[in-house]
Amino acid sequence: MKEYIIHHEWKIIEEGFNPAFNRISESLFSIGNGKMGQRANFEEKYSGDSLNGTYVAGIYYPDKTRVGWWKNGYPEYFAKIINSTNWIGINVRINGEELDLAKAKVLSFVRELDMQHGLLSRRFVAELKNGNQVEVSSHRFVSINATEIGAIRYSVKALNFSGEIEFSPYLDGDVENEDSNYDEKFWVEVSRAIGGQEGYLTVETLKTEFHVCTGMWFELTQNGKKVNTEITYKNKEKYVEATQKVAVNKGDELVVEKLSSTVSSLYYSKEQLVRKAKEAIELAASAGFDVLFESHKNHWLGKWETSDIRIEGDVAAQQGIRFNIFQLNQTYSGEDERLNIGPKGFTGEKYGGVTYWDTEAYCLPFYLSTASQIVSRNLLIYRHKHLQKAIENAEKLGFTSGAALYPMVTINGEECHNEWEITFEEIHRNGAIAYAVYDYVNYTGDKEYLAPQGFEVLLGISRFWSQRVNWSQDKQKYVMLGVTGPNEYENNVNNNFHTNYIAVWTLKYTLEVIEYLKTEHPYLFEELIQKWKFNELQETERWADIIQNMYFPRDEKRGIYLQQDGFLDKDLTPVSELSPKDRPINQKWSWDRILRAPYIKQADTLQSLYLFQENFSEEELRRHFDFYEPLTVHESSLSPCVHSILAARIGYSEKSYEMYLRTARLDLDDYNNDTEDGLHITSMGGTWMAFVMGLGGMRVKAGKLTFRPFLPEKWNAYSFRVNFGGAHLEVKKNRDLFTVINHSDVDVPVTVWENESLIKGKTETAFKK
Amino acid sequence: MKEYIIHHEWKIIEEGFNPAFNRISESLFSIGNGKMGQRANFEEKYSGDSLNGTYVAGIYYPDKTRVGWWKNGYPEYFAKIINSTNWIGINVRINGEELDLAKAKVLSFVRELDMQHGLLSRRFVAELKNGNQVEVSSHRFVSINATEIGAIRYSVKALNFSGEIEFSPYLDGDVENEDSNYDEKFWVEVSRAIGGQEGYLTVETLKTEFHVCTGMWFELTQNGKKVNTEITYKNKEKYVEATQKVAVNKGDELVVEKLSSTVSSLYYSKEQLVRKAKEAIELAASAGFDVLFESHKNHWLGKWETSDIRIEGDVAAQQGIRFNIFQLNQTYSGEDERLNIGPKGFTGEKYGGVTYWDTEAYCLPFYLSTASQIVSRNLLIYRHKHLQKAIENAEKLGFTSGAALYPMVTINGEECHNEWEITFEEIHRNGAIAYAVYDYVNYTGDKEYLAPQGFEVLLGISRFWSQRVNWSQDKQKYVMLGVTGPNEYENNVNNNFHTNYIAVWTLKYTLEVIEYLKTEHPYLFEELIQKWKFNELQETERWADIIQNMYFPRDEKRGIYLQQDGFLDKDLTPVSELSPKDRPINQKWSWDRILRAPYIKQADTLQSLYLFQENFSEEELRRHFDFYEPLTVHESSLSPCVHSILAARIGYSEKSYEMYLRTARLDLDDYNNDTEDGLHITSMGGTWMAFVMGLGGMRVKAGKLTFRPFLPEKWNAYSFRVNFGGAHLEVKKNRDLFTVINHSDVDVPVTVWENESLIKGKTETAFKK
Repeated sequence: MKEYIIHHEWKIIEEGFNPAFNRISESLFSIGNGKMGQRANFEEKYSGDSLNGTYVAGIYYPDKTRVGWWKNGYPEYFAKIINSTNWIGINVRINGEELDLAKAKVLSFVRELDMQHGLLSRRFVAELKNGNQVEVSSHRFVSINATEIGAIRYSVKALNFSGEIEFSPYLDGDVENEDSNYDEKFWVEVSRAIGGQEGYLTVETLKTEFHVCTGMWFELTQNGKKVNTEITYKNKEKYVEATQKVAVNKGDELVVEKLSSTVSSLYYSKEQLVRKAKEAIELAASAGFDVLFESHKNHWLGKWETSDIRIEGDVAAQQGIRFNIFQLNQTYSGEDERLNIGPKGFTGEKYGGVTYWDTEAYCLPFYLSTASQIVSRNLLIYRHKHLQKAIENAEKLGFTSGAALYPMVTINGEECHNEWEITFEEIHRNGAIAYAVYDYVNYTGDKEYLAPQGFEVLLGISRFWSQRVNWSQDKQKYVMLGVTGPNEYENNVNNNFHTNYIAVWTLKYTLEVIEYLKTEHPYLFEELIQKWKFNELQETERWADIIQNMYFPRDEKRGIYLQQDGFLDKDLTPVSELSPKDRPINQKWSWDRILRAPYIKQADTLQSLYLFQENFSEEELRRHFDFYEPLTVHESSLSPCVHSILAARIGYSEKSYEMYLRTARLDLDDYNNDTEDGLHITSMGGTWMAFVMGLGGMRVKAGKLTFRPFLPEKWNAYSFRVNFGGAHLEVKKNRDLFTVINHSDVDVPVTVWENESLIKGKTETAFKK
Repeated sequence: MKEYIIHHEWKIIEEGFNPAFNRISESLFSIGNGKMGQRANFEEKYSGDSLNGTYVAGIYYPDKTRVGWWKNGYPEYFAKIINSTNWIGINVRINGEELDLAKAKVLSFVRELDMQHGLLSRRFVAELKNGNQVEVSSHRFVSINATEIGAIRYSVKALNFSGEIEFSPYLDGDVENEDSNYDEKFWVEVSRAIGGQEGYLTVETLKTEFHVCTGMWFELTQNGKKVNTEITYKNKEKYVEATQKVAVNKGDELVVEKLSSTVSSLYYSKEQLVRKAKEAIELAASAGFDVLFESHKNHWLGKWETSDIRIEGDVAAQQGIRFNIFQLNQTYSGEDERLNIGPKGFTGEKYGGVTYWDTEAYCLPFYLSTASQIVSRNLLIYRHKHLQKAIENAEKLGFTSGAALYPMVTINGEECHNEWEITFEEIHRNGAIAYAVYDYVNYTGDKEYLAPQGFEVLLGISRFWSQRVNWSQDKQKYVMLGVTGPNEYENNVNNNFHTNYIAVWTLKYTLEVIEYLKTEHPYLFEELIQKWKFNELQETERWADIIQNMYFPRDEKRGIYLQQDGFLDKDLTPVSELSPKDRPINQKWSWDRILRAPYIKQADTLQSLYLFQENFSEEELRRHFDFYEPLTVHESSLSPCVHSILAARIGYSEKSYEMYLRTARLDLDDYNNDTEDGLHITSMGGTWMAFVMGLGGMRVKAGKLTFRPFLPEKWNAYSFRVNFGGAHLEVKKNRDLFTVINHSDVDVPVTVWENESLIKGKTETAFKK
């Protein structure tokens, strides 16, 4: 836990330079645009501790698996979105001495991320060993609309000296990943060119053979006038650099404008890449930093129009929730269905930037509510395109006949994870992917997605569940053995309630979708039957039998479902009675102790109760919450949001607010001492959920929007914005009222605290509880 | 499965050279003496596929752990008995061309291991590229009595040429392990010297800093006369070599005698090592190959006197069982309580030559019955000396107050294994170590061992069990959650019957031992109470409570104990109905599928029933066997022996014989296609058990020897030898009779098929069923 970030409603601000926090700040001040991401590494050389991170969406390397003891079925590699050509670099020499904040005396230092406009800036005054003092200010953004473009304005003012300053903007493709499994470099050079005010570097990933070409353009001005001194060039393998020297007088200000274009073979043929990079950089250069920024800024304002959350009376909370929204919008823009959301987005190497069930479970709701429908649809299409791989993945594990098991971790549909208890057993992820289909259709009403994509995914997953359960002669019920639930502090358990429940739910929903297809798309359905060799009668009969006869572990005395068989054999001492020296248990306890303890890493049984809360009475929800919450250690950042939403649902407002707060500033305050690895991007989706679905009590039931809002005592008011049913709504909660403002022309029926009301276009309606 | 070894009662014979089988033969023809071991690598250079293996007992390297996903509590390293200085090497050049069977034409080739005398020999005729034909014969042994000495007689006959032959005996310490986790070499040089007819090389292991000095002495004779030509020398880092050239005429025979001495800092101070190696080699050289061999051979005959098993009417079976006995005697001689038995002994790198529960569960009975009492006592002392480490190991996992958890894999008492489901959870090993104390005392009657060593070990283990169980409010019983039983095809199960049973048994036995100490050694016991802060009343009360109230999963309908909670939820299709394409399941199925299947890798519930068979009626044993045997895939070589013994006990003679056969020639016929990795040494102990306790039906009940023998139909007769109660017995079974011959002067009461009889010294008694 660190609290060095200054509170501000729209900005993230760091004052003073603390090298020990540098990696944390590099994460916090990351910028991106869904197509690329850049940690807040310095432009000038920095020889201190740093994690360089430049990431290009979809460009990955399959890093050979490292494992202690191999098990059949383990994947060959772990895919990683890899550190790519450094486009931000500008080496600066002042009277022959290199500017390097690790070696200079830093007299002042401010770093600022303006979230409203998407601009990263930095100002510092440094004194070099030679006594020269410079004031440096840099501004940087990666364009949210012209997504191939990065732009830097880097200014150096000679405070107390005259002499010579040398600027060397460069492109460096000779980069590596810190987390490389075998200390290998992943890139080889394809081509390089440098001359005039431009440079180009094309590199290729080993194995995957992606090409990325980065172009740069630069211009140096002195006190506002272009500098025309000689430019010298350096180039070596995977590296190009241009150097320009300027004679300066004390008080002079030198400004380098450096623009970059990053294009990859994901979007262009390899032959075209250099030309495309050149076209893009020349277009950008003709516009210049200011014009590019103006357009970028306006697009950011547009994003805030539909996704902002305002909190009155708590600047820290305001900053926290906006930071989350900003990062989610930076990470995924939904234009390309081949892309997805890594747990750390583009802000670090951890988790390789690849896809987990986090996307469906924690991020989809944000994009559903705040972005165009195509954005969340593309998240679904990502999985639909991986269906064949999911079928092959299931085949590797012995399943047949089109059963699909989506991977735990993937970038291209192939499994990357290699812990058997997760890879092979944490199969509830398949349920999350099925649920996302429902979630999308329920929220958007876009039933057409079911014909055929949604159906095809559901069919594969239903077939998997149907084969994964087995009949217990002993119980005279279907059981599901050897699974790991969302609570990864249990492994290889039998009859995990959540997994069993979401499996049965998938079967039911698939049957519903089949009815829909038969009614609405009978010809298409006939074709799908052929395509998927779907033996409708036999398969659906088995599904119905499973739905009818699935076993759910239950404690009748307490009136609750049990997380898994045998849960009540544990010593059920609540978390509150653990000694602080035992926390967090995942750092203090050996794995076996964690496994036999009752402590829950993240919502597990409660995950089902949150997803399917309509199927349980409020009293039932409360009984489960009262049993499981005291046993939950929330050692996953994905946990508190679900508890927050459920707590709100059962009227535990304080608990709900407490749970909301646990992740709202997770990264800004480095709550878990791991922000240096990157930001918890997917958990930010969870925080948004906790706000909107917890505090706001928003839910879509039978295609209709409902709210059960409450206002935390510490705040004066809040408001948030959601798209729904073609309308754009802003909702506000203050101490007395809940107001729904319809900014669009479309009428929307809304239920607030059980009162149904039609909010007409361009009107607002206030509700009082 | 390969059957290229020629059947012979006393010899292992390979005829013809098959490079594809070379690694297998290198394992099969390994020689050793408990202090060192040597794979059957060739003396002359061999550039073909080979696994070089020279192992020095107790000299290990802690190879840094390789792991995919780190868990708290994982060890830092895996200890490995490592490949050490090659002392067998003799490079041979014939008219300038190097003798190398990978490059020459092999005209004939025979390899022979004479188990009766412990001699490895090899004869071949090869034609080099230059047309020169040589007949080579080599003889080699590592002395079973002068354990520092290795001896080679290597003869080359010039068949069709005259010219020059060059011999270069050498010591090479620049060796590596194929299984090095990070491709590192483990040795650095300390010193080297070469001159006269001698050479010395001292090397040191990294990290552990063991020193090993190897000395060599050589002499070259031509047609029986010593060759006095000039000797030239070569030495470089970790390598010394002497070369002698001889002019030869067609028909000449050249013989190199090469002796080696291997001494380590385990037995001498580092400063003394070279001197000790020199003393040993000079003493050996003064004796010479023939004298050394004579003494070696006689010691081997002595070993056979007490451990031989004869089978009449089946040469393959005879060869198989003797091979097992030979290897067990080569691997562990019981003189040093710091040494133990690796699963592959000194015959390969796999399992690192370190200690598993195999020792107590499968090897101890062999040494108890066939060797001096000190041998098995030293196996126990090995664990007693590791008690403090076992307590520290338990502390790492959160246990307190002297609870001891012995490691799954160790060389020095520290845990080396890193799969959580094994390392932390396969804790029945602790029970096996406790049982070994009982086994030893029961067999030998040496109750003094309990005061204090046996007691101390039992106390630590009982304290562990006492903390490892927890009270289930739900069951109103003690339960043991999250364990892996002997059947490693189940992980993290609750209430594994065997683990629960052996835990309760440990507590009971410890209480018995406490009663014994209080009666027989009251003063010592008082001191032990102080030393171990033993709160006798409180601790033993809890133990008694656990003994009284432990939970055992059971199916009342079938009248059997269940391997673990939930076992009956599985699809119980028997192994016999599996498709051959699914076998072995550990190669064909993914881990999750194995885990949720009912298939048992090795005896698990039956392990308890075998150990504690007196506690169960024959009918009960049969019910369990009938339930579990059809579900057992025996994919561990440690499995069939237990089934064999139990099958014999319940009168399933054919099944017992079938199970016996499954491991009797496991390595000789390369049954599992893995003999190339080394021999299954510890499973050889199991095979011995299956013979003596299964076919022979031998068991010690309440300190008395009992037999329930049967003769497999295919055999005419068998006999085996055991030490018991100070006597040495030979027992014979033929079609009609079972005869007990007492070779000693001590009278022994023996029960055969429930008939008790006193076998007086130097008499024999025949029994008929």
